[in-house]
Amino acid sequence: MAVTMGVPGCLRQVLRGKVADVLLFAPQRFFSTTFKASDLQIELNKHLKPKPDSSKLVFGKNFTDHMLTVEWSKENGWGKPHIKPFQNLSLHPASSALHYSVELFEGMKAFRGSDQRIRLFRPMLNMDRMLQSSLRACLPAFDQSELLECIRQLIRVDQDWVPHSSTASLYIRPILIGTEPSLGVSISNHALLFVILGPVGPYFTTGSFNPVSLLADPRFVRAWIGGVGNCKVGGNYGPTIYVQREAAKVGCQQVLWLYGDDHQITEVGTMNIFLFWKDQEGDMELVTPLLNGIILPGVTRQSLLDLARKWGEFKVSERSITMSELIKGLEEKRVKELFGSGTACVVCPVDKILYQGKNYHIPTMENGPEIAKRFLKELTDIQYGRIPSDWAEEVC
Amino acid sequence: MAVTMGVPGCLRQVLRGKVADVLLFAPQRFFSTTFKASDLQIELNKHLKPKPDSSKLVFGKNFTDHMLTVEWSKENGWGKPHIKPFQNLSLHPASSALHYSVELFEGMKAFRGSDQRIRLFRPMLNMDRMLQSSLRACLPAFDQSELLECIRQLIRVDQDWVPHSSTASLYIRPILIGTEPSLGVSISNHALLFVILGPVGPYFTTGSFNPVSLLADPRFVRAWIGGVGNCKVGGNYGPTIYVQREAAKVGCQQVLWLYGDDHQITEVGTMNIFLFWKDQEGDMELVTPLLNGIILPGVTRQSLLDLARKWGEFKVSERSITMSELIKGLEEKRVKELFGSGTACVVCPVDKILYQGKNYHIPTMENGPEIAKRFLKELTDIQYGRIPSDWAEEVC
Repeated sequence: MAVTMGVPGCLRQVLRGKVADVLLFAPQRFFSTTFKASDLQIELNKHLKPKPDSSKLVFGKNFTDHMLTVEWSKENGWGKPHIKPFQNLSLHPASSALHYSVELFEGMKAFRGSDQRIRLFRPMLNMDRMLQSSLRACLPAFDQSELLECIRQLIRVDQDWVPHSSTASLYIRPILIGTEPSLGVSISNHALLFVILGPVGPYFTTGSFNPVSLLADPRFVRAWIGGVGNCKVGGNYGPTIYVQREAAKVGCQQVLWLYGDDHQITEVGTMNIFLFWKDQEGDMELVTPLLNGIILPGVTRQSLLDLARKWGEFKVSERSITMSELIKGLEEKRVKELFGSGTACVVCPVDKILYQGKNYHIPTMENGPEIAKRFLKELTDIQYGRIPSDWAEEVC
Repeated sequence: MAVTMGVPGCLRQVLRGKVADVLLFAPQRFFSTTFKASDLQIELNKHLKPKPDSSKLVFGKNFTDHMLTVEWSKENGWGKPHIKPFQNLSLHPASSALHYSVELFEGMKAFRGSDQRIRLFRPMLNMDRMLQSSLRACLPAFDQSELLECIRQLIRVDQDWVPHSSTASLYIRPILIGTEPSLGVSISNHALLFVILGPVGPYFTTGSFNPVSLLADPRFVRAWIGGVGNCKVGGNYGPTIYVQREAAKVGCQQVLWLYGDDHQITEVGTMNIFLFWKDQEGDMELVTPLLNGIILPGVTRQSLLDLARKWGEFKVSERSITMSELIKGLEEKRVKELFGSGTACVVCPVDKILYQGKNYHIPTMENGPEIAKRFLKELTDIQYGRIPSDWAEEVC
């Protein structure tokens, strides 16, 4: 059976229904500070869905046949991880995730190379960030490598869902929610970690970038010093939907998030932001905001910084950039490229900013965009296994 | 049967199983911009739980036998409201509430008077605030009076759960969540409104206030200008749990939330805050922060302001108060009382603030607390029907 390919011996035994009663008093019945991939229980879906046409995928709307779930309680610690048919969750109506946003998530992808091997891109960075988000949410810790191994097993079970394409991929959504069934605003004594998967198409059709226009309106602030803008928690996202709608009303596709009286540029939509320009001293510089507490530490952000520093061809800076600095750079024709970075698109060029009633044209496209395209090529070459890199980790 | 008391004729027919096929093409099948209480479908719980001892109630841990649910979709608008046995929710694992905190709630209470009548306290203020939160979350609008009427029906069905006590009450939790089953950060095309109820004990045993100590640490900021601190959305609450734990670590019971470089006092725990003092001009003044976008517009807050203005005995101000103003007032022995206000406690006196490594004693208890006690008495007299007021609305 195709879906058991890559499932190790210990798991195959489980698949054959040999989860014996002898496990009843095994160590995993006692308090567990982490779950273990070696404890995985797998129930295969008997009703496999047809796979969607990978040329018509809409982000986040298709899901695979299986999911991973792991329950946690203060009393018993982590339970065994389960891979089971994709299904609705049964949640107590007082669950703390629903009332108080005790919830956090990650976003990552698996890529199928032309060699048919499936690879993850720097997945431990996601696991580490997820743990950091969990600690901030007062949700339980876990062993990041055990979660990653469970995710690898889940991908193996649903490996036929990884698109046979050099541009599409399988989106992976790990999420941890508080399931405390009571209404006090306090530490959750119950939690549920789960992982769902879905095939997603390319953000851009090959070779052609579609630049986006941004609304930069200082009335709306995404995150602030002393808050949780550096964690991937649900509460950072819901409030942005209204602002995104405000942007659309004035013909902009995404939001450029400003911060502070000096209108620092912080993020764009749900992405980090990069400026490539000639700085005031006349040096070519790639600059992105410093991780000062209001910036999400993006995996793509880190990878672009790492690549640029490896290239060593221009200055690479993590520091604040203000709207007035950017506008001065535009007026003096020093700005080359402005782009977002994220898991969905890798890089996303910006060609316009609407700020204080005025449209500012950004010449990203006129300049290639040389650096953005180079980043896109290098990262996707690694992700699809076209060039070897220890950033790409084979799943199967 | 007691639980059908107050259920109008149209509903009794439903209860007898006469939901006829003729409804299939009735108007409510078409797009509805609000749900209607007259469409209520009631399925009674056949397995009623024993009621807990009302002297031992823990907030938010006990729930009644029934709940209200109303589904919404972009395509069909609001469905019919249902009262049904209290039960788990079945949610798609991609539901936008779980991932992006597309969620908001309300908190209110029903009180049983010594005349056995059950009353709500200014419930339309909660309905109005819920609508405001919903619009900010890009969730659907609804007719506030229809929701209130559905809640009244739910309370009638579970009326035996309203404690027979002059200090306990029935807590009411309306909540609206995004149930969009896809992972894009965008407007939810599906939503679920539900209401759960639970008996809660008195916050203080009669006559004796227990003052709380507060940690005021400017490293932690609850809400910020340009965010959603004035809405009752989940994302405002989850991040506070960590800070509450930090407060507990240094022996404080709650958090005093500061804002800005001048350390403005904004809220306390999940409550609004009031200072009663002699101001710098020597006038007695009750002051609470202005609704500037970072303050939750509390129903109790509004009621204390309304009462104080009706009394007309001292200055009543809505303006910012900074820590340095408060400390100066303490040094000059002008501070009389500092207290939180909220649905849970009505008023909650403060006797200590830990700020920048120093403990500041607040003489709230030494001063009665005269004003806090007067507010508590007046509001509870209204809530329990001991004095007539149009703030108390009879349910049955």
